[in-house]
Amino acid sequence: MSESNASATRITPGNALRPEDIAAADLKPGEAVGEYALRLGDDALILAQRLGWWISRAPELEEDVALGNIALDQMGHARSFLTYAGRAWDKTEDDLAYFRGEDEFRSCHLVEQPDGDFARTIARQLVVSHYQFELYSRLMDSADPTLAAIAAKAVKEVDYHRDHAGQWVLRLALGTDESRRRMIAGLTLTWPYVGELFEDDALVANLDGVAVRPSALRASFDAQVEAIFAEAELEAPEVPAAVGGGRFGRHSEHLGYLLAEMQVLAREHPGATW
Amino acid sequence: MSESNASATRITPGNALRPEDIAAADLKPGEAVGEYALRLGDDALILAQRLGWWISRAPELEEDVALGNIALDQMGHARSFLTYAGRAWDKTEDDLAYFRGEDEFRSCHLVEQPDGDFARTIARQLVVSHYQFELYSRLMDSADPTLAAIAAKAVKEVDYHRDHAGQWVLRLALGTDESRRRMIAGLTLTWPYVGELFEDDALVANLDGVAVRPSALRASFDAQVEAIFAEAELEAPEVPAAVGGGRFGRHSEHLGYLLAEMQVLAREHPGATW
Repeated sequence: MSESNASATRITPGNALRPEDIAAADLKPGEAVGEYALRLGDDALILAQRLGWWISRAPELEEDVALGNIALDQMGHARSFLTYAGRAWDKTEDDLAYFRGEDEFRSCHLVEQPDGDFARTIARQLVVSHYQFELYSRLMDSADPTLAAIAAKAVKEVDYHRDHAGQWVLRLALGTDESRRRMIAGLTLTWPYVGELFEDDALVANLDGVAVRPSALRASFDAQVEAIFAEAELEAPEVPAAVGGGRFGRHSEHLGYLLAEMQVLAREHPGATW
Repeated sequence: MSESNASATRITPGNALRPEDIAAADLKPGEAVGEYALRLGDDALILAQRLGWWISRAPELEEDVALGNIALDQMGHARSFLTYAGRAWDKTEDDLAYFRGEDEFRSCHLVEQPDGDFARTIARQLVVSHYQFELYSRLMDSADPTLAAIAAKAVKEVDYHRDHAGQWVLRLALGTDESRRRMIAGLTLTWPYVGELFEDDALVANLDGVAVRPSALRASFDAQVEAIFAEAELEAPEVPAAVGGGRFGRHSEHLGYLLAEMQVLAREHPGATW
C-alpha cells in the first residue's frame, strides 16, 4: 500500500507543536485539565507500546514499517499530551511515563489488550483509530489552546491510521476462509472494550468546552465502523461489555506486565543523566 | 535533542525510490550484483530488527521515538536493497526476508550482536552508522543506477544516525562515572566486530565500479570515529577481532533466535494473502 510508504516520510510543516515547545511555554493547566490530558496521553502511550511489538514480527516487511510508523505517531501524541499534563504538577513526560504506578494510569482497557494475532491487532486498531479520529476532530475546537493544537496535529495522523485499519479489515474479511475467521475472532475479542471509550463521567462534565464528551462520539463512530463492516460483510459482535474502570486507575492484569517492561530501564537509573 | 524530532517528520521529496518502484521497473541484475545487494539489505534488515527492540524500552520517551525512527529508516533501506536483490532470482523482498535459512543471510556479525544495555546499542550504532555513511557516500557513484539511487537516499538518513550516535557517545562518556563505565564496556563488546566490515573478497573485487571495496572505507571511518573519541576522552578498544564469516553465511548463535522471531508469522501462513 502506498499509504504506508507515504507515512514513513510524512510531511507536517507548520503544525509542529513539539513536546519541547509545550515544556518551554508558560503554561500551567489546572489539575482537571491535567487529568484529562493524562487520559489522552496514556491511551496513546500504551497503544504505542503494544504496536511496537510488531516491529520485527509483522507478516510483511511493508507492514513492519507501517505499524512501526503508527506506533511512533502514537508515541508523539503521548509525549505532547503527557508533557502538557505534567505542567499541572511540575512533572516531566518521563516522570509520568516511567514513575507512575499502574493505578495512576488513566488509559482505557482497549489499548492494554494483548496484540494477539495480526487480525486481533487490526481489530483493536479499527476501534481505537476511529475513536481517536472522532475525538481529536472535536478536540480541535477545545477552549484550551494547547489541547486544540495537539489534537489538530494528531488528527491528520490518526486519519491515516483509520485508513490503514479499514483497508486491512477488508483484506482479511474478504480474503481466505482462514483470514476471515481470524478477523471475526479478533473483533469478538476486541468488542467488549468498546463501551468504555464512550462513557461520560464527572471529570469530563466539569470541563465543558475544554474536554470532549465521550458519549457524543458514539453515533459517528458507529456510522463509520458500520460502513466498513457492511463492505467487509461483517457484523458488530454481540458480546457483553467488559468491566471498565481504566479512567480511574483500575486496569486488567495486562497493564502491569506492559509497564514493567516499559519502566525497568528508567527505574534502574532514576534521575540518571543519560 | 531536536534532531530526533526532526527525524519523525523527515522530508525527503524528490528522491523517493520506493521498493514498489524497484519491483515494478524492468530490472534484472546479475547474480553477483544480487549477492552484493543481499549483503547491504541484510545488514539493514537485521539492524532494524535489533533496534526495534528498543521501542518501549528506551531510557526516555524521546529516545523511544528516535531509535524507532532509525529502525524504520533501516527497514526502508533493507526493503529497497532486498527488492532489488530479489530481481536476480525472481524473488520478492518478503521471500528473502522470511524464507531464507540462517546460512543464506549475508549480514555482518556486528548487526546481529545483542542490544545489551543502552550504551552497548549506542556503541553498535556508532560503528554501523559511520560504516554505512562512508559506504553509501561512495555507492552513490556506482555504475549500477539502482544501487546508486538507493544509496543516495539512504546516505541522508544515515548521516542523521551518525549524529545521533555521536551525540550519545559524548553524553554517556562525559556524563556520570556509571554512564562512562557503561560506554566503555559497550565499545569493548562491540569492537571485535569492526574488522569484518572492512574485509575485501572476490565478490566485491569482481564488481569493480559497481560495488564499493570495504577496505577503501577504513581510513575515513577511523578518522571520523577517532575525532569523536578524542572529544569524548575515549580510546578505541584494543581487543582481538572476532571470527567473521557473515558475508558467507556463517553467523553467531544470535542470528538464529532473531530470525525465528522475525520469520515465524510469515512461515506459519506461507503464501497467505493477508
